[in-house]
Amino acid sequence: MLFFTQCFGAVLDLIHLRFQHYKAKRVFSAAGQLVCVVNPTHSLKYAPTRCAAAQASTEQGTLPPCHHHEVVHDPQLVPCTCPLFSCPWEGHLEVVVSHLRQTHRINILQGAEIVFLATDMHLPAPTDWIIMHSCLGHQFLLVLRKQEKYEGHPQFFATMMLIGTPSQANNFTYRLELNRNQRRLKWEATPRSILECVDSVISDGDCLVLNTSLAQLFSDNGSLAIGIAITTSKVHSTEAEM
Amino acid sequence: MLFFTQCFGAVLDLIHLRFQHYKAKRVFSAAGQLVCVVNPTHSLKYAPTRCAAAQASTEQGTLPPCHHHEVVHDPQLVPCTCPLFSCPWEGHLEVVVSHLRQTHRINILQGAEIVFLATDMHLPAPTDWIIMHSCLGHQFLLVLRKQEKYEGHPQFFATMMLIGTPSQANNFTYRLELNRNQRRLKWEATPRSILECVDSVISDGDCLVLNTSLAQLFSDNGSLAIGIAITTSKVHSTEAEM
Repeated sequence: MLFFTQCFGAVLDLIHLRFQHYKAKRVFSAAGQLVCVVNPTHSLKYAPTRCAAAQASTEQGTLPPCHHHEVVHDPQLVPCTCPLFSCPWEGHLEVVVSHLRQTHRINILQGAEIVFLATDMHLPAPTDWIIMHSCLGHQFLLVLRKQEKYEGHPQFFATMMLIGTPSQANNFTYRLELNRNQRRLKWEATPRSILECVDSVISDGDCLVLNTSLAQLFSDNGSLAIGIAITTSKVHSTEAEM
Repeated sequence: MLFFTQCFGAVLDLIHLRFQHYKAKRVFSAAGQLVCVVNPTHSLKYAPTRCAAAQASTEQGTLPPCHHHEVVHDPQLVPCTCPLFSCPWEGHLEVVVSHLRQTHRINILQGAEIVFLATDMHLPAPTDWIIMHSCLGHQFLLVLRKQEKYEGHPQFFATMMLIGTPSQANNFTYRLELNRNQRRLKWEATPRSILECVDSVISDGDCLVLNTSLAQLFSDNGSLAIGIAITTSKVHSTEAEM
């Protein structure tokens, strides 16, 4: 009986995902882009991570800035960069992707342009929506976070990190685009390296920031579709073009 | 002696403006756009305007939504729409522009694409930067406001209003663009009619919203350059393009 109940639940989930996928396809069908439905995860990071601890120490002037390779003992190793959990894992940069896939079950998508469809935007903060994106021979981590910077006023923060070094990150530009209800919002920037803290990028507000009211204007039935594109860096040369 | 002091002050102001104009031209020279230096004005609107009063009444369920033509006695007349002052003036929509120019000394600029250079971004909230923009046979009012929605956390809100009716406004799309430090932020929307309240557009957050940290990243020496473009409306047809 339990088996049948579980099967029925799984079928319902599949129908729900299929419906959301259809909705997203309807919105972005003209571009023929890959749509990825991303479910939220409540942040379990209640204990401070090494990164946060390093940051706190930095603020007290006792440690250098928050770069993982300056914090860990072996400079060849990086700690787990998953922003959801305080995970004791550490390893070489080359195996971060497989760790994130296998241990934290973060999906990876191929393609230069994809649509990230974050579901259940109404869930209370802190909540994260995370996916990996593989293109141009590299892997990127997209983080959408709902967080209360000002108590009682949750905001949404979206940023993209390269799973690579800061100098590799400088070769790329990422674009996040929201488009609905006769409104369009575009954010373009150089991705940060995953060796920097995603927490500090978000607390600095150096990313796409949405108030709840604007997020609602861009959402459809509780889901927020973000168009993502990655290109090799051209921001330097186009700075004066506007 | 006083005359010479005043002359010297005026010359210093001119040099300062010329320098800011040069800086803006340096940033946007490639596009050959018109750069307009806009100085801030502290909001003197401490007394509630008719619009705010109408809104308060609406919230209590006693009056229809905040449209000036529903609030004034003569439906042919609109009150002063200047967001800076509670001004007792009212007149026909056709003479709003000359009232704003003559009484409130708001500049008007010609051209489909201009650069709005707001100076002294560090001034405390509430502060407004306002200009009129004439193009495609209509006049638009650009309002940039620094306001504390959450106490102690000022934000910047930028929106464009058509000095015309809501149905006329639906024919246009405006774009605001910030571009600096390898970051680019674009907001595109249909302008609201000046018959609606600029205050409610800003309090709804249905406009370009910048946290102080992001505004600092886009500013150069305390000035924020916003590229403005107005086109006839195409948002409907491009909604699925992304």
